Amino acid sequence: MAKTIYILNGPNLNLLGSREPEIYGHETLADIEARARAAAKSHGLELVFRQSNLEGELVTWIQEARTEAAALILNAGAYTHTSVAILDALKTLEIPAIELHLSNPHRRESFRQHSYVALGSTGVIAGFGPRGYELAVDAAAGLIG
Amino acid sequence: MAKTIYILNGPNLNLLGSREPEIYGHETLADIEARARAAAKSHGLELVFRQSNLEGELVTWIQEARTEAAALILNAGAYTHTSVAILDALKTLEIPAIELHLSNPHRRESFRQHSYVALGSTGVIAGFGPRGYELAVDAAAGLIG
Amino acid sequence: MAKTIYILNGPNLNLLGSREPEIYGHETLADIEARARAAAKSHGLELVFRQSNLEGELVTWIQEARTEAAALILNAGAYTHTSVAILDALKTLEIPAIELHLSNPHRRESFRQHSYVALGSTGVIAGFGPRGYELAVDAAAGLIG
Amino acid sequence: MAKTIYILNGPNLNLLGSREPEIYGHETLADIEARARAAAKSHGLELVFRQSNLEGELVTWIQEARTEAAALILNAGAYTHTSVAILDALKTLEIPAIELHLSNPHRRESFRQHSYVALGSTGVIAGFGPRGYELAVDAAAGLIG
Amino acid sequence: MAKTIYILNGPNLNLLGSREPEIYGHETLADIEARARAAAKSHGLELVFRQSNLEGELVTWIQEARTEAAALILNAGAYTHTSVAILDALKTLEIPAIELHLSNPHRRESFRQHSYVALGSTGVIAGFGPRGYELAVDAAAGLIG
Amino acid sequence: MAKTIYILNGPNLNLLGSREPEIYGHETLADIEARARAAAKSHGLELVFRQSNLEGELVTWIQEARTEAAALILNAGAYTHTSVAILDALKTLEIPAIELHLSNPHRRESFRQHSYVALGSTGVIAGFGPRGYELAVDAAAGLIG
Amino acid sequence: MAKTIYILNGPNLNLLGSREPEIYGHETLADIEARARAAAKSHGLELVFRQSNLEGELVTWIQEARTEAAALILNAGAYTHTSVAILDALKTLEIPAIELHLSNPHRRESFRQHSYVALGSTGVIAGFGPRGYELAVDAAAGLIG
Amino acid sequence: MAKTIYILNGPNLNLLGSREPEIYGHETLADIEARARAAAKSHGLELVFRQSNLEGELVTWIQEARTEAAALILNAGAYTHTSVAILDALKTLEIPAIELHLSNPHRRESFRQHSYVALGSTGVIAGFGPRGYELAVDAAAGLIG
Amino acid sequence: MAKTIYILNGPNLNLLGSREPEIYGHETLADIEARARAAAKSHGLELVFRQSNLEGELVTWIQEARTEAAALILNAGAYTHTSVAILDALKTLEIPAIELHLSNPHRRESFRQHSYVALGSTGVIAGFGPRGYELAVDAAAGLIG
Amino acid sequence: MAKTIYILNGPNLNLLGSREPEIYGHETLADIEARARAAAKSHGLELVFRQSNLEGELVTWIQEARTEAAALILNAGAYTHTSVAILDALKTLEIPAIELHLSNPHRRESFRQHSYVALGSTGVIAGFGPRGYELAVDAAAGLIG
Amino acid sequence: MAKTIYILNGPNLNLLGSREPEIYGHETLADIEARARAAAKSHGLELVFRQSNLEGELVTWIQEARTEAAALILNAGAYTHTSVAILDALKTLEIPAIELHLSNPHRRESFRQHSYVALGSTGVIAGFGPRGYELAVDAAAGLIG
Amino acid sequence: MAKTIYILNGPNLNLLGSREPEIYGHETLADIEARARAAAKSHGLELVFRQSNLEGELVTWIQEARTEAAALILNAGAYTHTSVAILDALKTLEIPAIELHLSNPHRRESFRQHSYVALGSTGVIAGFGPRGYELAVDAAAGLIG
Repeated sequence: MAKTIYILNGPNLNLLGSREPEIYGHETLADIEARARAAAKSHGLELVFRQSNLEGELVTWIQEARTEAAALILNAGAYTHTSVAILDALKTLEIPAIELHLSNPHRRESFRQHSYVALGSTGVIAGFGPRGYELAVDAAAGLIG
Repeated sequence: MAKTIYILNGPNLNLLGSREPEIYGHETLADIEARARAAAKSHGLELVFRQSNLEGELVTWIQEARTEAAALILNAGAYTHTSVAILDALKTLEIPAIELHLSNPHRRESFRQHSYVALGSTGVIAGFGPRGYELAVDAAAGLIG
Repeated sequence: MAKTIYILNGPNLNLLGSREPEIYGHETLADIEARARAAAKSHGLELVFRQSNLEGELVTWIQEARTEAAALILNAGAYTHTSVAILDALKTLEIPAIELHLSNPHRRESFRQHSYVALGSTGVIAGFGPRGYELAVDAAAGLIG
Repeated sequence: MAKTIYILNGPNLNLLGSREPEIYGHETLADIEARARAAAKSHGLELVFRQSNLEGELVTWIQEARTEAAALILNAGAYTHTSVAILDALKTLEIPAIELHLSNPHRRESFRQHSYVALGSTGVIAGFGPRGYELAVDAAAGLIG
Repeated sequence: MAKTIYILNGPNLNLLGSREPEIYGHETLADIEARARAAAKSHGLELVFRQSNLEGELVTWIQEARTEAAALILNAGAYTHTSVAILDALKTLEIPAIELHLSNPHRRESFRQHSYVALGSTGVIAGFGPRGYELAVDAAAGLIG
Repeated sequence: MAKTIYILNGPNLNLLGSREPEIYGHETLADIEARARAAAKSHGLELVFRQSNLEGELVTWIQEARTEAAALILNAGAYTHTSVAILDALKTLEIPAIELHLSNPHRRESFRQHSYVALGSTGVIAGFGPRGYELAVDAAAGLIG
Repeated sequence: MAKTIYILNGPNLNLLGSREPEIYGHETLADIEARARAAAKSHGLELVFRQSNLEGELVTWIQEARTEAAALILNAGAYTHTSVAILDALKTLEIPAIELHLSNPHRRESFRQHSYVALGSTGVIAGFGPRGYELAVDAAAGLIG
Repeated sequence: MAKTIYILNGPNLNLLGSREPEIYGHETLADIEARARAAAKSHGLELVFRQSNLEGELVTWIQEARTEAAALILNAGAYTHTSVAILDALKTLEIPAIELHLSNPHRRESFRQHSYVALGSTGVIAGFGPRGYELAVDAAAGLIG
Repeated sequence: MAKTIYILNGPNLNLLGSREPEIYGHETLADIEARARAAAKSHGLELVFRQSNLEGELVTWIQEARTEAAALILNAGAYTHTSVAILDALKTLEIPAIELHLSNPHRRESFRQHSYVALGSTGVIAGFGPRGYELAVDAAAGLIG
Repeated sequence: MAKTIYILNGPNLNLLGSREPEIYGHETLADIEARARAAAKSHGLELVFRQSNLEGELVTWIQEARTEAAALILNAGAYTHTSVAILDALKTLEIPAIELHLSNPHRRESFRQHSYVALGSTGVIAGFGPRGYELAVDAAAGLIG
Repeated sequence: MAKTIYILNGPNLNLLGSREPEIYGHETLADIEARARAAAKSHGLELVFRQSNLEGELVTWIQEARTEAAALILNAGAYTHTSVAILDALKTLEIPAIELHLSNPHRRESFRQHSYVALGSTGVIAGFGPRGYELAVDAAAGLIG
Repeated sequence: MAKTIYILNGPNLNLLGSREPEIYGHETLADIEARARAAAKSHGLELVFRQSNLEGELVTWIQEARTEAAALILNAGAYTHTSVAILDALKTLEIPAIELHLSNPHRRESFRQHSYVALGSTGVIAGFGPRGYELAVDAAAGLIG
């Protein structure tokens, strides 16, 4: 049976394409999901792709990934910088977790340079825009080899 | 058609009138809503007035205001000081946003002196109690003139 | 009529027994609830016992405890360290509130050493594992005399 | 007899209209005074309106307001961020004091994010440009009701 | 043979009952010792109960507890916040150690919010006044089970 | 010829007697001047006693004291905490300088705990209210022996 | 019956006269005691004058002063900067307490610029060398009137 | 003509395979170079692959890449955290630059959590071990399209 | 018509020649003015040369330079480190501004290492004593070429 | 007559051999004393070797060493990091003082990386276990040559 | 024989003219060298003018200047902010050293606001672009008189 | 075959004897090498003794010591405080490493009080001047037993 990857997206990512396009680009989240699905398919992987504005819902989905997924890719948006709850959920995982960002947070405001998500992740991919989702699927495929 | 203003209220503001009245006064949120509705009416404006304890629900409502409102007034309560997600939602707006507080946060604990909301707001009104809602509606009316 | 105690549990505590057992032990939250119910019963107290991953839902339940409970015991998990909203809810209480942790946060990462919950609590019990729930019920019983 | 409001303006505000118009707008201080006078008149209030580049002269005028004014509106300019002497003068007041800024200081350099004036003020209005003077007069009228 | 618990009290605790009763209550240290002895007796435990104003004497007594006690309860008073020497003594223990405070230090001055004792303790009980000694004896009894 | 002592008073000290009497007491600056004159007379000293709200005027007077006075007593008020210019003026003195405060600044807000004046003073007297002026004159008399 | 003043001296003050004379001068502690006794006598006061290198012994003596003395003068030496235990003892006093230093700590290393003693003292006298003891006795006499 | 990618490796990376294998793995730098060459070849790209322990030599090579390369991949090792000179060199580039790390620096010592390289890079890939070099080549190929 | 340069000097610079000569040298401000006039004359420039101890007067003169001068040279003395008001005045200039110091502030106390003046200046010249005024005139001449 | 070296040991060093042997090794303090005596003897030196848990007693012994010893070796244990009183005692010495540690404090908790003792010592020897005592005696012998 | 001045340039200055011209201007380092040679010639001075990307090579050249030069002008580029080794080399000089920058570092990123070079330099010239090299040669000529 | 010790010296140590002799003494590096060779010989050890101003060359030599030496003694000079690259090289060693300084860095500027070298060293010897090299050889001989 095909292995499954979870891609979880945090607050405001549902607005992609209209929100600050000079930072986040013009593709919508649906466009990005299509890219990710194609990449997953090329590796023979199933894909669960979701978005929520609620910190607690992301916590619940990460918990779900513990038993349902072979790897987790998490673009936690603003919660990256403030959520110890998400870090605690990541720490319960035995599967690899990849921190993903569209832009490079180190080139933005200083409060975006600390990441709780990083403390619970295997690896980080940031700054490649929508293409970063494909790279993250490739990286996940490699990790669950 | 009448333009619409959104007034969004964050956590614990549903308790107004009973919570720490020496700081927040004795009016309830319903009393305040009545004040705001009267002020909006005097400017010929529609008013959407809501409260939520959930950070993510506030994010969603701010996103909704992008297309439904001519101006946003946000009393984010405690999330003022901790929510990058709300800041990110505010940054997607092209309409004016007003940060509102009943008390003057600078005269309270030090952790109430940093505001993420301020980083995404046009203006700030704080310290005038329930009357601040009327001032904010006036200010909003001026901004969307 | 019997008085009621609220025990509220925050994010990821639903995973107890499987999450980082070297820190949190092998008992599940259901096991712990049973311990707490027995302790409450021995004091002739009713018990409401809940868990949520949502910060805002915890805020709402604390507000509910204002009128429904004689004492509150709160293991806020990760929100202990980040939630001013929960602190604000605690400050509205006139009943005693007890901060509870399974482990001793001072022996973990530095970001777990600040507690907003402590600023709104009568007392603190930490580091005694599941047995801490029984101690907290005893302490609450003493406080509500 | 009509009550009097003091509006005091700090350093460099005499240059309004020519100084950094992208931040402070194109109206001169005389234009703004006219706005404020109209607003005061509409509330049946007298208005004293002054500007000084000297920290100590502002201190003296605030002291004068103790006995001569029913409310004080203070746009302390750069001294907002550095003057404990102005804070001490504000603390001697028994009348309401309103901190006023044309721009929103929280969106500018970090050294503009601390306000000594706020520690001695009833309320804050910032970010509404010249119109903020009218809002402040309205707010003052409400406070001295 | 009955196991022994050590309860050690730090500087100024000999003044209990007269010192700042709004923080520390009206019971004397002798009253508290009586409570603790009763609690120990109910668990079939011996109790050694001492107080010293000298940091080094507390260090020596903690060292003594290594071989003489089954558990240690330490209310280190002001040394909680400044003594690395006490921490080092605690780290030599193989028996459980419980940090105890009458008040909740997190609600007092900021320099009382760091605890060296916590870094060497199994658990913490704070904020329950004299009754905290009974809870600590119960907790200790549970730990040495 | 009698030696002269300068006593210089900074911003808001002209309001003594009415300003925050719970901190500064009920005596006016004229009352205090009378005390100081009596003390100076008892030591056979001339006294120059002045007050200004202007930082730069205080700088000028300190410079004047270089050649006209045998000792300087400076209650710089709020400028104590912010004025490097006053420190620089003090450093030009070859006569003794005494930092004076009515209240004990260490027991007030944290921004009152740093003193530029202290870096340029021989000694400090604080917390004794109006009587501190007499003690400072005595201390000055001793220093210029 | 004559009132009594306690003068307590902290660590290393027994070496006065030989220790770093460029900072502390050439008088011995016995010389200083003689000065203080003369000053006390001139006010009709009894004097208890002691020195200890032990933090805890100073704590005990401050406790003793609660019932035995009308005022306390404390030169806590190095413990000024590190001892919360001494602060806690001072806070139990209802008599006036005066912080005393031979030199002006603000002109020395930065770690000498924080004073726990100041947080529990009525007033501060520093920088006048041995003569400071006389000034402190005068100040104490004034306070106990 | 084929485009060229530069992969530059900083200090101590010549030791890969023997240095702290629990962090950096068992592959040598030559093994990794082979991986990278294969990945480059699959994209039809030339590859320049170098290592230096000298900060200044890395600066010179980055300068060389300005005219010789279509993209730069930089694993700057320890200089990531300390070299403003390398940042300045990166800022002169008009080609994309990718920051690469074998491990996830955010999970290591705190001084490894600041990156000057990130301030001058398009994107970041970290934590995937030797496979990260392949991902970085893929990402670079995408960027130079 | 000849262009005009303004040289403005801040607090305590009127004492040059007597104040701390080991830092500031033995020339008086009049000597320095003579140097500066000679340098200006050699470039065919008019010179306005003033000194004030008042921060606000310096602000006013900088404002005057906006319309009257072709370049400004500012030795703001102690206000360099504390005056946001002077920075704000500098920011209104469209002519070049040069920060000037007699000594090198980086080799003095740490609070002299931050410069608000630098944030509003084209260039900085420091550490060359009175000759720095000539260099600054030369630099200004070059800038207004 | 043979010169004398003082070796003073601080809190918890009496437990050597049993306390955290993975850090401090298995030799007892008596074993170490024997090593030190042999080393001293080989240089023809007398040795005073003591241990105390009391900060003030260490202060007293350091004072004693001023007149009795030719050199001081001090392993102040935990007081290294917290005791200004010990630093002050060291500063009274005219003989060489050597700071000694069994382990290398820089590789332990961050609060062990600041040393007050270092500020008053000629040299430092750390990290060589019991053999460090011999090295320190050798170094002392060299210094008193 | 003519005296010699050393002008040493640090990393990335070899790229001048192409690197970030909006900050550094369009002249190349060769153009600047020509300016500097002309200025030196006008003062009858020899000039050694070099550039290196290697911190250690700059250290070696500064050492060489100790015996070969009458003055040193150092534009250390990025090493200004990070190199204690260069500071140590500067401290060995007995000749004057001038810190030089093309731009004004205080108006750039915060990490460019600390200068180790300043701690070892006589004076600073910054912000005048290529003309700063001529001013620095003039200043050096004045210093070596 | 004799074991070999590496002694590596960092930037500016080639100037010993002329550089700041009040801190570093009058012996040259050649004198010190002779001392070290004699000490090594007395232990039957070979000695490699080198100096470089280049951080990267020191990294390379430390790497070389991994296979060629039985122990490393490193006086990294200024790189002690800034070089993570040297720390990383030290961490690859399985042989003992000793951090060595001529002076006691804790008594100098604050930026010399952090040591990256200490984080990768077995032990530290500092403050004994040239004799420290002999002590370090003795210590190394002891460690490689």
